[in-house]
Amino acid sequence: MAQILQGDLVAREVLDSVSQRVSRLSDTNGVDACLAVVLVGHDPASEIYVRRKQKAARSVGIRSLEYRLDEETSQQGLLDLVHKLNADPAVHGILVQLPLPSHIAGDVILGAIAPQKDVDGFHPVNVGRLSTGAGGGLVPCTPLGCVMLLERVIDDFRGLKAVVIGKSNIVGKPAALLLLDRECTVTVTHIHTRGLPDIARSADIIIAAAGSPRLVRGDWVKPGAVVIDVGINRIALEDGTSAIVGDVALDECDHAAVITPVPKGVGPMTIACLLKNTVHAAEAMARAREPAVQ
Amino acid sequence: MAQILQGDLVAREVLDSVSQRVSRLSDTNGVDACLAVVLVGHDPASEIYVRRKQKAARSVGIRSLEYRLDEETSQQGLLDLVHKLNADPAVHGILVQLPLPSHIAGDVILGAIAPQKDVDGFHPVNVGRLSTGAGGGLVPCTPLGCVMLLERVIDDFRGLKAVVIGKSNIVGKPAALLLLDRECTVTVTHIHTRGLPDIARSADIIIAAAGSPRLVRGDWVKPGAVVIDVGINRIALEDGTSAIVGDVALDECDHAAVITPVPKGVGPMTIACLLKNTVHAAEAMARAREPAVQ
Repeated sequence: MAQILQGDLVAREVLDSVSQRVSRLSDTNGVDACLAVVLVGHDPASEIYVRRKQKAARSVGIRSLEYRLDEETSQQGLLDLVHKLNADPAVHGILVQLPLPSHIAGDVILGAIAPQKDVDGFHPVNVGRLSTGAGGGLVPCTPLGCVMLLERVIDDFRGLKAVVIGKSNIVGKPAALLLLDRECTVTVTHIHTRGLPDIARSADIIIAAAGSPRLVRGDWVKPGAVVIDVGINRIALEDGTSAIVGDVALDECDHAAVITPVPKGVGPMTIACLLKNTVHAAEAMARAREPAVQ
Repeated sequence: MAQILQGDLVAREVLDSVSQRVSRLSDTNGVDACLAVVLVGHDPASEIYVRRKQKAARSVGIRSLEYRLDEETSQQGLLDLVHKLNADPAVHGILVQLPLPSHIAGDVILGAIAPQKDVDGFHPVNVGRLSTGAGGGLVPCTPLGCVMLLERVIDDFRGLKAVVIGKSNIVGKPAALLLLDRECTVTVTHIHTRGLPDIARSADIIIAAAGSPRLVRGDWVKPGAVVIDVGINRIALEDGTSAIVGDVALDECDHAAVITPVPKGVGPMTIACLLKNTVHAAEAMARAREPAVQ
């Protein structure tokens, strides 16, 4: 039987550690870590995500500010808010919930967030630091969560074959770069990839982030592989209800060494990593304000 | 017989086009495209590269400024020069020749160059834009040259399997990102990769950038593959002389569809792309200064 790697339990540990760091920062530096969440419009899925993030923030003692803007808000209006939050020393993390309405250019907004407050890790400077392995940047939450899960079960990544399914900027590409940095041989696949089952079958590590329900079947997975399922897909059931399934047919993967479930796999890690990034940003800002010790 | 893709001939065409753009910019906007080249110390290979770049710049009408700093120059001294060049509106491209002496942090210097003048494409903002496929950034010269060569012989990259050998920030990683952007399935391999010959043999496109003489043997190459050889290695010959060879054993690759030679392959393309980036930067700066047409 494959080991089921419970992301929710690992996330709990991450949150405990974040909570301790938040307390220490408050006690030692008098700084209250603070995350500003910006939501434009009323996308129902975004509403749910934002609520979850805020609840988790409160649970670890991070102050959470909510900014709700009308669906018709102009790009400049949103930019003005971002600039205000950039300039506010009490704000350590800024999260603009995606997707944005179509009249707002997402890359302009993401590029306007101060890199040191960009807790989603989407600013070009943070993406660039991740790509070059320079370090010192904020890393996107979902791929960071994936790699933290992998680190629970893999000691030495060197030379392992990793196959990333999906090449999004939010998951696939940064996950590939993080694995490359750990000396894996990395293949990035996507909708145009030919012979994906064979490619997946060659992998020691599969990160499935295609957004396609049960895409990865049991016979795509090599015995002993470690499988991280990033997909969160709602499917209709025959009885008229619906269910959440991942990108991997977990029930067919008994021969994997380790596999993450959906739900309670990568999802909780994403939120935990957002708060980890927030306290990290708050600590870095507190350090930058301290006088250097002689 | 494999088609030998003469990079020097393609580079000539690129340079001709750059030359025309330089003239047009001068005639229309009164702007003389200008590249500032900074060399710290006296590394003999760097001296050769810098001389070649300057000669090529002159050949297309790009003004070339040379700044030579002593090996003992401080990091701050170099930073001061970079800031001066950033602020100089007559300078459109800034190239700090690598490697830098060990007492200077390369990432600090590269991160200090104004992104819009970063004609090497190494600034985190440009790396980030390349990674996300956002566009609008300057792309590192060697991988850009590789892809321009590939575009001479491949119409549709979608779904082709590309194997990149080497994961440097200068060639391997940006080349992989450019190919991913063109919808290839991309595998990045490196010194820790196991079973590299088999992986290479699966590729429709090989980019060899390992810096290892004749690493890629004939039986690593699938019949009909396109092979781009980035390696420039000097090896000792039995008669006491030396020769320049690539990372690919070209003489064993008759069964490839297309292969680039070394020398006269990727090398000339790298320099041509540097000057392409320079005129691109100059054009963008001239546009930014023009009053918007109502």
